[in-house]
Amino acid sequence: MKRVLVTGASGFVGKHLIEKLVLSPDLDIFATVYSSPESLSQFMPTDKIFSLDLTESDKVLELVQSVRPDIIYNLAALSIVQNSVENAKNVLTSNIALQYNLLESMRLHAPYCRFIAICSANEYGLVKESDLPIDELTPLMPLNPYATSKVAQDMLALQYYLAYDLDIVRLRPFNHTGSGQSIDFIIPSLAKQFVDIKAGRIAPKLLVGNLETVRDFTDVSDMVSAYSLAADKCVKGEVYNVGFGKGISVREIIALLSEIAGIEVEVVVDKARVRRSDVPTLVSDSTKFRQTTGWAPTIKLKETLSHVYNYWLTK
Amino acid sequence: MKRVLVTGASGFVGKHLIEKLVLSPDLDIFATVYSSPESLSQFMPTDKIFSLDLTESDKVLELVQSVRPDIIYNLAALSIVQNSVENAKNVLTSNIALQYNLLESMRLHAPYCRFIAICSANEYGLVKESDLPIDELTPLMPLNPYATSKVAQDMLALQYYLAYDLDIVRLRPFNHTGSGQSIDFIIPSLAKQFVDIKAGRIAPKLLVGNLETVRDFTDVSDMVSAYSLAADKCVKGEVYNVGFGKGISVREIIALLSEIAGIEVEVVVDKARVRRSDVPTLVSDSTKFRQTTGWAPTIKLKETLSHVYNYWLTK
Repeated sequence: MKRVLVTGASGFVGKHLIEKLVLSPDLDIFATVYSSPESLSQFMPTDKIFSLDLTESDKVLELVQSVRPDIIYNLAALSIVQNSVENAKNVLTSNIALQYNLLESMRLHAPYCRFIAICSANEYGLVKESDLPIDELTPLMPLNPYATSKVAQDMLALQYYLAYDLDIVRLRPFNHTGSGQSIDFIIPSLAKQFVDIKAGRIAPKLLVGNLETVRDFTDVSDMVSAYSLAADKCVKGEVYNVGFGKGISVREIIALLSEIAGIEVEVVVDKARVRRSDVPTLVSDSTKFRQTTGWAPTIKLKETLSHVYNYWLTK
Repeated sequence: MKRVLVTGASGFVGKHLIEKLVLSPDLDIFATVYSSPESLSQFMPTDKIFSLDLTESDKVLELVQSVRPDIIYNLAALSIVQNSVENAKNVLTSNIALQYNLLESMRLHAPYCRFIAICSANEYGLVKESDLPIDELTPLMPLNPYATSKVAQDMLALQYYLAYDLDIVRLRPFNHTGSGQSIDFIIPSLAKQFVDIKAGRIAPKLLVGNLETVRDFTDVSDMVSAYSLAADKCVKGEVYNVGFGKGISVREIIALLSEIAGIEVEVVVDKARVRRSDVPTLVSDSTKFRQTTGWAPTIKLKETLSHVYNYWLTK
């Protein structure tokens, strides 16, 4: 039995990963949550769910000492929830602190452990047209404090590999979506609006930001399969992009959702939703990851959009 | 009159920079120190020296609002003083927090200001032989939490340029030394030992780490001239390496100090001083900075070593 620790387990991706991992009979799953253990009790026994603040060094040292994990998936990270001076500072300092606490605890108490550092395609930020699709050598040009905090987590994971030869793999996932993702993200935001319009709760006007923004979406279930494969197959010290590899515009996503919902809507550009300093196109090149692990996404975007639409139908 | 704010001003380089800047009649100099204002009172009036913790957002907002600087030189950063779990975490979180507080305060209250972000050649870390000499495109491979914290500061400065088009320049200085640097650094450590041996205070045995380590040293006075030139000449958003461009081994430094002191010593390798995960050779390519600013170092290493030796003679 391998002992697996998933941090940030009650988040959108965390829950999907836990749901997948608990099906493996050869894995003994432990999880950390910032919220209450009840948030995961539908998936696993609560005595293996630790509710703690990963920025507290002593708590994390104690956790790693008692769990003695063979694999850590670090999905824990604060994101920008409100645009305040204090919040952005907390995102920057907390994300680096929790990564440090986990890596240092692993170095001291579980140096044999494999560490899967979940970084982010956000780190690439301002990508030049000529650098598309984005491979792992594309320069890191973060555009917001969250992205910068992910660069810091990424570099700290690299540093722990370089300095201590620990078994660390870094993944930079591109956009992914599915049931349970919050409406702060584009696809749930659009899907929920379609559901509300269809139900007659709001007028048939879809509020969107930039229609021409192109992103590369993977279904969350394909993404957590990638995380799991990474633990088995990736090479220590390396960094891998993970993504579908196909760009789709917001305009095209709306057309697909319109088919799924069976309704036509008026599209209204909402200036508050147009992000400043955003890049027009982000498409992944995850050749390195596919060749190393054999991974390939299995779910097409239209199917994913149906999942998300149906999720909001039942909410 | 340009209003100039120097942070970390009571540190080794900070004092040298202040000493230089106060000579310019067209600059109005303000400084922050973590220690008492008295630490700088020999150079400038204490009513322009602010004693504060730059990790406190509200204090920094207030500072930038009241000083309204035209130029900020951010030299403030914690370094690794003791090898403890808490200390390394503080270095990581404090260095990113203070950079954030300064940049965000500037964005809000002094968006016209030029910001000189003092980053570090340490960010390059594990450099391949084939990447020597190191230019700005060499990958960042930090080897310790201090170096990682400087990558985080660097990326945050880049982010503030990319996202808000602020007037930010990043410098990555290579090794520099001079009077006032602490004996935690190699050249003062060797110079002080020579002084102590010469005075008969210790046996003629020089304790060193790896003799073959090659570094690229610039005199601190040439380095602060570079900082000052950067404020005048560098291009917004760009990053520049700054260094002499000539590698010298610890063995050669010892030979030069031996000439300066006029004594022969026995060299003893002290395992405690051999750093793990260190790279054999770091030499800068600062062509970009020289071509942009016209800077060239003026002080040869032997003269610098004499300064450091004489500094410790009089301590």
